[in-house]
Order: sequence, then structure tokens, then C-alpha cells
Amino acid sequence: MVRGELSGNPDQVVTGLAGLREAMPHDVSFLANPKYQAAVKATRACVLIAARDLQVDFDGVVIRVDNPSEAFAELVRQVAPPPITFRPGIHPTAVVASTARLGKDVSVQPHAVIEDRVVIGDRTVIGAGNYIGHESRVGSDCLFYANISLRERTNVGDRVILHSGVVLGADGFGYEEVGGTHKKIPQVGSVEIGDDVEIGANTAIDRGRFGRTRIGKGTKIDNLVQIGHNCVIGDHCIICGLVGIAGSTIIGNHVTLAGQVGIAGHLTIGDKSIIMAQAGVTKDVPPGSIMLGAPAVPHKEFKRVNAAIQRLPEILAKFHDLK
Amino acid sequence: MVRGELSGNPDQVVTGLAGLREAMPHDVSFLANPKYQAAVKATRACVLIAARDLQVDFDGVVIRVDNPSEAFAELVRQVAPPPITFRPGIHPTAVVASTARLGKDVSVQPHAVIEDRVVIGDRTVIGAGNYIGHESRVGSDCLFYANISLRERTNVGDRVILHSGVVLGADGFGYEEVGGTHKKIPQVGSVEIGDDVEIGANTAIDRGRFGRTRIGKGTKIDNLVQIGHNCVIGDHCIICGLVGIAGSTIIGNHVTLAGQVGIAGHLTIGDKSIIMAQAGVTKDVPPGSIMLGAPAVPHKEFKRVNAAIQRLPEILAKFHDLK
Amino acid sequence: MVRGELSGNPDQVVTGLAGLREAMPHDVSFLANPKYQAAVKATRACVLIAARDLQVDFDGVVIRVDNPSEAFAELVRQVAPPPITFRPGIHPTAVVASTARLGKDVSVQPHAVIEDRVVIGDRTVIGAGNYIGHESRVGSDCLFYANISLRERTNVGDRVILHSGVVLGADGFGYEEVGGTHKKIPQVGSVEIGDDVEIGANTAIDRGRFGRTRIGKGTKIDNLVQIGHNCVIGDHCIICGLVGIAGSTIIGNHVTLAGQVGIAGHLTIGDKSIIMAQAGVTKDVPPGSIMLGAPAVPHKEFKRVNAAIQRLPEILAKFHDLK
Repeated sequence: MVRGELSGNPDQVVTGLAGLREAMPHDVSFLANPKYQAAVKATRACVLIAARDLQVDFDGVVIRVDNPSEAFAELVRQVAPPPITFRPGIHPTAVVASTARLGKDVSVQPHAVIEDRVVIGDRTVIGAGNYIGHESRVGSDCLFYANISLRERTNVGDRVILHSGVVLGADGFGYEEVGGTHKKIPQVGSVEIGDDVEIGANTAIDRGRFGRTRIGKGTKIDNLVQIGHNCVIGDHCIICGLVGIAGSTIIGNHVTLAGQVGIAGHLTIGDKSIIMAQAGVTKDVPPGSIMLGAPAVPHKEFKRVNAAIQRLPEILAKFHDLK
Repeated sequence: MVRGELSGNPDQVVTGLAGLREAMPHDVSFLANPKYQAAVKATRACVLIAARDLQVDFDGVVIRVDNPSEAFAELVRQVAPPPITFRPGIHPTAVVASTARLGKDVSVQPHAVIEDRVVIGDRTVIGAGNYIGHESRVGSDCLFYANISLRERTNVGDRVILHSGVVLGADGFGYEEVGGTHKKIPQVGSVEIGDDVEIGANTAIDRGRFGRTRIGKGTKIDNLVQIGHNCVIGDHCIICGLVGIAGSTIIGNHVTLAGQVGIAGHLTIGDKSIIMAQAGVTKDVPPGSIMLGAPAVPHKEFKRVNAAIQRLPEILAKFHDLK
Repeated sequence: MVRGELSGNPDQVVTGLAGLREAMPHDVSFLANPKYQAAVKATRACVLIAARDLQVDFDGVVIRVDNPSEAFAELVRQVAPPPITFRPGIHPTAVVASTARLGKDVSVQPHAVIEDRVVIGDRTVIGAGNYIGHESRVGSDCLFYANISLRERTNVGDRVILHSGVVLGADGFGYEEVGGTHKKIPQVGSVEIGDDVEIGANTAIDRGRFGRTRIGKGTKIDNLVQIGHNCVIGDHCIICGLVGIAGSTIIGNHVTLAGQVGIAGHLTIGDKSIIMAQAGVTKDVPPGSIMLGAPAVPHKEFKRVNAAIQRLPEILAKFHDLK
């Protein structure tokens, strides 16, 4: 299947495919990068796909190919189960308002609810138990998995993928303090999701106070991310799991926010910046920055300071002697 | 509409309202605070509402008023689309137990499930796909958005707003270690939500082991917050996104927990304290404290220590010279 | 009921049970550990269960027993409302594919959706609004609460408890950069959950790129946790709220991850390690480690360095004098 050269038992039975480290005893795995040699030693896989000329320390069957990574991907394509597809049509248990306008070959899965004046583009799949609020517009070729909630007047572009549990357009977190109590500020804006965006499970993006909370085209958002009201996220960003962005912050294009990053409100993060995991950003960040720490500082500065910190107990001892 | 004085093209077409920074080319925006002058220069808005006497560097239409913030809010009220309302009545696809008692003008949306002996107050809206567990009590004038889950015996006060994906009353995270395995400790308590509380999308509040996990009246909770079993949160608190509070912690009244704060279990946080973003609280906090850092220390101390830390590489160099 | 010796008003009316700190005026509470004497003074409870010989400073009714903790647990057992159970059978509003195979006494609650070729073991409860994707397999005696989503080909063991809002098998967060845009890498693997696992509200576990994301038997996961694609979590681990684990990380057996911990991708965390709250792990961790801080270091080192840091402003002043 991968046109490789096999050494070892050609009758070895295999039942799955996996990376070296997560492989089980009947899996085929592969070594793409020589630096993972140690993982070869520890793997439970019984078949290894490896480069033709690479020395490997492996007891099982070895299949030699030119490009192990490509060969493995080809194998996945050949043996992976076919993707699940959803047939066009409206399931009889779905509740679709008579004023909603559905494009060609839209699929509305069981128990979905589509409210008045919603517009949905061609070939889009609205998953089981989805709620699509009044006057929302969803583009073409979108794929919404089960149990997603869109509040009223949400706008979603074309080819957008939303994973289960996503909530778009909940009220922004805005209150006015009146004598020690918190009076709700009406949140009458909306959420706008660009083309080719993907949003992970249980992520929440709040509607604008007025105007829009916007996610630029091609941006990919992981699970359990919180994006506050009136944020504007640029195009082609990567936002990892458990990131929190407070209200009215502007993120440029091609920005990467690693896991658990927090960004305060009303800031601007420049294009192509990288905010490292768990950083807490409290000030504007110029384009192309790499930031780390809480409060976040440029990456190099963090490394220098952190190296100094780790030496601190030893330095204090020397200082005591010197004194 | 705002009784202002217009300068510039009176025929300028506008299609939306937005803050300076998130505005699109056909939006009206406003300048409430002179310190945002730089945002005026960068805005894409075509109309700006500004104070009568304030110099602004803006090419588009300017409308002068006494109070730009109020004028803009008035404009929002006039042009914002009408809020969505849900008609009273039980949707035919909802499943409502015969032993449930619903008040006057309750709205039960499609596919909601209301279990045995639930009591719901007048004019409350139970959103699409909500699950209201056995013997729960929900007050009057509540608004529950789509896809919310309340486990059995949850108590919710009046005028409570729950956003989509909220989970109230899941089992507390409690196990007893028995020979290296974790034996579940039954969680037979409940959750109690005070009047005028608002809870953000995908937030989870666990039921008590016995007794109650309580949220005091007027407290506002943002998205993706985790509140452990037997916590007692006071009145009129503000809890921001991605905060985690471990079990049995007591939070006073008028406390603010900023984004991604973590609070260990069995602590007491005094009234009117402010815990800054990403702080990790590991000890009791006296009333009126401002805490920062992980482990959290008083704000002033954190600033002093952090300033010293940032100077550390330079100091170490000097120390080396001195030595 | 607890065979204790009562002093004070034997006609005191009580309406609930609670810990000392969360008790309301008509609750019974207990003092198990003498170090909580201060909580006795502050409690609002009207009845206290205490050890026979312990001096307590309490105005209300005291009931003396040999073991207050056990006596209280016994009381809970006697007065706690009976647990909610779900009758076997398929609710008429559920949508169950004709090719699905359900075991004996399975309960399928209202509006659940069970797709083609799903297999469900005996006595398992599929909660209201659950979505069980194509070809998934769920074991026996599982309890799935309301509004859970399992994507296709998810495998769940026996006696697994899933709380509301759990999402299993959403696509892993994997993209290839092509000219500044992010091209989706197909995620054709699955998720495998071992026996006796419990997973908290709104937690998301992504499917493998190929192969499986696996959670070992007996592992307990709290609310709002994010587990990336191809992670392998060992047996009998404890993973607290808001933890994030990036893709392809291997966690050993009996590991504890405290609240808001973040772990980078492609790491190995050794057996019986403890990662303290909010730590950020960026390197492999040997078995039995206790790690703290961001970047995480061994616990002792963190304490030593942190103590030095807190003294830093004072040291710098002394250093200035010395210079």
C-alpha cells in the first residue's frame, strides 16, 4: 500500500495506526524525524515505517520508504473509515420557522431549532440539537456539529466549522455600578464570523454591546476559548485552548495565542505577534512581538529575567558572604 | 435624532453603530473620553459624535452634542433592532412532566425537558433544548437561553439570566483514595442561585456534597467559569471569564475576580476584595485587599517585587563587578 | 438517628445539613477536625455534632458522638432525598437509528439522538438531548447526563459518568501553514474512555489525528478541561478544573493535575507526579515529581526561588548600601 520494502514477518497482523507514543501492540507507526529515535525504542507498535537509510533500534516489522510521513498519511487515507456525511433535508423532529430561508441541499438534523427570518446557505449542515436564533445568517458549506447555540442576529460566513457546545452571541459581560449593585448594560450588537473559520468545542464568543464582535477569515479557534464583546480578531489567527480575551481588544492578522493566554480589554495586539502559553497581556503589543510571562514581556527579556531568577538563591548566599 | 450640530456631508449614508476601534467604513461612532483621540485618527467610522468644544482630528462627518456617550446610547436605543421576545406557552415538542407546576405566562421553548415536581415562576422563559431536572425550583421573570442543563433539586431565584451552555448542579469533584483508586463520594447537596444573578455561557457550578453551593443575589458571572462544590459566593460580586474556584471556598460580598483567577479550596476571601487577572490565591484574603500574582500577594508588594525582578539581570551584572 | 448525647434544646427545629462555613440558621453541622474551632464560632448552624470529649465554643444544640464525621455521613444517608433514577426504555421523542444496538434495560431520555451502528451496553442511561455519533460504542452501567455530544466512533468503557455539556471526539486542533493560511489536517482518529472514568461538565476531549486519544481506567476529570488530540492519559489520574493539555502528551498513572494547569504538547509526565495549580509544564517530568510555577520547576526549587524573590526589594536596598 505504501510501495515500501518490508523486513521482518510479512504476516504480522495489524489493527490500527498511531503515533509512536500512543501506539498499541497491533498498530503500525512511523518515524518521520530522527530525533524521535527514543520513542521508537519505547513504542508498543508492531510495524514501523522508516526512511530507507535510517538506522532504527526496533524489534518488529520495518517498512522502508522514501518519505515515512507521506507514506503514513497515504496509509491513513486508504484505511481510515469514510467520513460521516449528513444527507440534505429537514429531519421531521426539527423545528424550522416558516419565515426561515434555507438554501439548496441544506441538512437540518434532529431536534434543531431554526427561528424566524434565519437565512442558511447551500449545502450547510445544521447539527442535532442546534439552536439558530432569530434573523441569523449562516453561509454556504458550513458544518455545525451537535448542540450548538447561536443567539439572534449572528452572522456566519462560508465554509465555517463549529464544534459541539459552541455558543455565539451570548450577552457581553457589561454592567454599570450603581450604589454597589451591577446594572446590566444592554448588549444589542452581534457576532460576525468570517469565511473558513473553525471554532472548537464549548468556545463562547459574546455579541457586541453595540456594533459587532468580529472573527476574521481563516482564523482557527480551539476548545473552551472566551472572547469578550466587541473584540475584533484579525484574519488567519491561531487561538489555542482556554484562551481568554476581555472586551474590545483588537487582534491583528496572523497572530498566535498559545494555550491559556489571557489578554486584558481595550488592547491592540499587532500583526504576526506570538503570545506564548499562559502569558498575561496587559499592554498593547507591537507587530511581530513574541511575548511571555504574566505580566507579559518580550520573550528574550523573559528568558533573561527568568534565568536570573532561578540563580537567585545562590546569588543571595554569595551576597551574604560578600556583605 | 440626537439633537446635535452636524458639520460635513449631511447626506452621508450610514449602516451601523460601533465603538471607534471596531467600526467599519459606514458606521457612526463617538468620542466620550478625550484620551481616545488616537483612536479617532485610526477609526474607519464615517460619522463621529463628539463633545461641542473638543478639538478632533477627523475627516468625516462630526456631530456635536453635550454628552457624546449619552447621545450614542440614545441613538442605539432608537435604531437597535427590537429585542427578541418569547411568547408564553408550551411548545408542542417540549416534554413537561404532569407533576411540574408552571406559573402564569411561562414560555417553554422547543425540545425543552421539564422533569417531575419542578416549579417555575411567572413569566419565566425556558429556552430551547433546556433540561430542568427533578424537583428544581425556578423563580419568576427568569430568562434561560438555549441548551442549558439544571440537575435535580437546583434552586434559582427571580430575574436570573442564564446563558447557553450553563450547567448547574453537576456532581462536585470529590473522591476518597482507596488503595490508589478514587472512590466517588456521593454528592447529595444542591445549588442555590440568588435573585438577579446572571451566569455566562458554558459556566459550570457544581452541587454541594451535602448542603448547598450558593451564589448570592446580584452576582454576575462571565463565561466558562468553574465553581466547585459547597462554595458560597456573596452578593453583588463580579466573576470574570475562565475563573476557577475550588470546593468549599467562601467569597464575601462585592468581590471582583478578574479573568482566569484561580482560588484554592477551603479559603475565605473578604468583602470588597479585588483579585487581579490570572492571580492564584492560596491563602485567606482579608476584606478590601487587592491581590495579584501566583501565589497571590497584595498588589503593592507584587508591583515592588516585579519591578525588582525586571531589574535583576542588570543588578546581577553590577553585583558581579562589585564582587 | 446518630445515637449521640444531646445538650441544649431538644425541640430545636432543623431543616438542612451543611458544612460549618456554608451552614444556614436551621442547619445541622459537625466538627470533625479540632483545627476548625474558629469555624464553629462563626457558623450559623443551630446544631453541632462534635466528639464526646472536645471543648467547643458553641451556643446552639450540641450532639456528642464518637466519630462526628461518620455520624454526619450517616445522617446524610438517612435524610438525603433519594437519588434520581431513569427508567429503562426509549422515550418517544428520542431518535434512535434502526441499525443501533441497545443492551438490556437501556434508558434513552427525551430528544436524545443515537446514530447508525451505535452499540450501547446494558443498563446505560443516555440523557436528554444527548447526541451519540455514528458507530460509537458505549459500555454497560454508564450514566450520561443531559446535553452531551459524542462524535462518531467514540469508545466509552463501563460505568463511565459523563456530566452535562461534555464533548468527546471533536476534531483535534491541527493545521498546516500554507502561505500564511491554515489548512486543516484531517482528524480521522477517535477517543477511547476507560472503565470507571468520570468527566465533568463542559469538558472537551478531542479525537486523535489518527489513532486514539485515550483516557485510562479510573481517571477522574473535573469541569471545563481541554484535552488535545492523541493525548494518552494513564489510569487513576485526577485532573482538576480548567486544565489544558496540548496534543500528543503522555500522562502516566496516578498523576494529579491541579486546577488551571497547562501542559505543552508532545511531553511525558511520569507516574504519580503532582502538578500544582496553575503550573505551566514545558518539559518532560520524571515519575514522582511535584512541580510548580510557570515554567514549572520542582516544588522545592520553586519555594526556594519564590522566597528569595519576595525578599528581593529588601536585598536590593542592602545591595545599594553596600555598593
